[in-house]
Amino acid sequence: MGVIDGQTIIDITDKFPDMLSLIKAGKLGIEEIESVIQSGRGKIPLDHQVLLAPIPKVKRNIICVGWNYLEHFNERYRQDIDLPKKPTIFTKATGTIAGPFEEIPLSEKHTKMFDYEAELALIIGVGGKNIKESDAMNHVFGFMVANDLSARDIQQEHGGQWFMGKSLDKSCPVGPWIVTKEEIKDPQNLDITCTVNGTTVQKSNTSLMIFPIKQIISVLSQGMTLEPGDIILTGTPSGVGFKRNPPILLRKGDEVEINISGIGHIKNRIIDSYES
Amino acid sequence: MGVIDGQTIIDITDKFPDMLSLIKAGKLGIEEIESVIQSGRGKIPLDHQVLLAPIPKVKRNIICVGWNYLEHFNERYRQDIDLPKKPTIFTKATGTIAGPFEEIPLSEKHTKMFDYEAELALIIGVGGKNIKESDAMNHVFGFMVANDLSARDIQQEHGGQWFMGKSLDKSCPVGPWIVTKEEIKDPQNLDITCTVNGTTVQKSNTSLMIFPIKQIISVLSQGMTLEPGDIILTGTPSGVGFKRNPPILLRKGDEVEINISGIGHIKNRIIDSYES
Repeated sequence: MGVIDGQTIIDITDKFPDMLSLIKAGKLGIEEIESVIQSGRGKIPLDHQVLLAPIPKVKRNIICVGWNYLEHFNERYRQDIDLPKKPTIFTKATGTIAGPFEEIPLSEKHTKMFDYEAELALIIGVGGKNIKESDAMNHVFGFMVANDLSARDIQQEHGGQWFMGKSLDKSCPVGPWIVTKEEIKDPQNLDITCTVNGTTVQKSNTSLMIFPIKQIISVLSQGMTLEPGDIILTGTPSGVGFKRNPPILLRKGDEVEINISGIGHIKNRIIDSYES
Repeated sequence: MGVIDGQTIIDITDKFPDMLSLIKAGKLGIEEIESVIQSGRGKIPLDHQVLLAPIPKVKRNIICVGWNYLEHFNERYRQDIDLPKKPTIFTKATGTIAGPFEEIPLSEKHTKMFDYEAELALIIGVGGKNIKESDAMNHVFGFMVANDLSARDIQQEHGGQWFMGKSLDKSCPVGPWIVTKEEIKDPQNLDITCTVNGTTVQKSNTSLMIFPIKQIISVLSQGMTLEPGDIILTGTPSGVGFKRNPPILLRKGDEVEINISGIGHIKNRIIDSYES
């Protein structure tokens, strides 16, 4: 495991073998990393490294917020659904995690409507239950970029519940790293964009969330304990592929890039899964 | 960890420290346990032991099937929903797992509509992807009893997605043990009942599932890899509390008992969570 310092990486595996051990170390962990950076320990050029998902083996499903940007809610399929007073919450299976630049296998046997969703992901640091909004940011460890890849046909086939359509293997690339919250001045004012083969398809700002991060954390933790390392995806802006005219559905060879200001970008190529 | 032999338990912690290590050992694991039973190793009377959840720390969310008994589907809230051609799938958070006789904390701050759902739970043995129905039972390790405790008010407040209403801490008591599949002649012919304070409220048979176990496993594994130790709840029959006239909603002091023939029973008392 490593810490990014400018265009270099410092290996800290001797101090923290994985991200979860660093997250659990709390403020002392961050202080130890800062001292490592200042110690002049050997640095490896970043551009020679293959970056993996910051938490490759998550401890439970990724928690996701749906319809969290008003313009995206207005793209919804069923017009008889009112804007929820509370966030729409579903999960993605643990096997969805993929690296920030990993190839994503797609089988047309499983879906013919594979779609992108650019999202700001947050990582819980200190766990807790019944967290107040005023205390919520104290439970955030950091942020990363995520693509909530969604199989729209599967999403609609399972009695209205989205889990299956959101849980194809490798359908949640994340990264390229975790930016700790101390480095982000205002997480509710970050530009977020998505391009497919270089064409911009989503362009928004996290200031336009219906339910801001502190409210998401507070609502999620009512009666359900949040744990260190929990990953929460905060919803996608408008511009998803299956609602465009004409629709944009992901095919083999397509490249999807998501960029969030102050964090970085992830870029994933869709490839053939070779499943018969 | 122990093996049940009649009214006794044999401690096998030296061979298998937890259930997941036994599950991963496959057929050899089962054979080793059978030889331990026949070895005459010391037996502890069962009625002196406190049984915990067979897998207390699950590796990811519990996977659940909704509306899998026709009579229960006909109790649904929205009459404009057609019977799905594929099973309705959602998840419960990992923190929902509770022991078979554990007290379940209830906070009226979180829900005023806490409800029971008697369900047959299956545990995946050998993982896999794109599993055929004809091969599905080879991926089952065993069965247990589960109560998919559900907060009906929360379930309807989050944009139609059920995860939050299904994920209050300790809202999934399971057990009292895992019966390996070799011990169950036909899992699609088991009586399943639920009582609240001794009164029968659900009474059905697993033969009445809309989507049988082999189909559930096959559908779940399409594009989503199932893993050893995955817990799958197979749906509840009719008779849930909030659809009864008058409704039965769980309150502090209520005792919910679920019995499945050939497996056993779990019994949980609802207590005050003392959350302010």
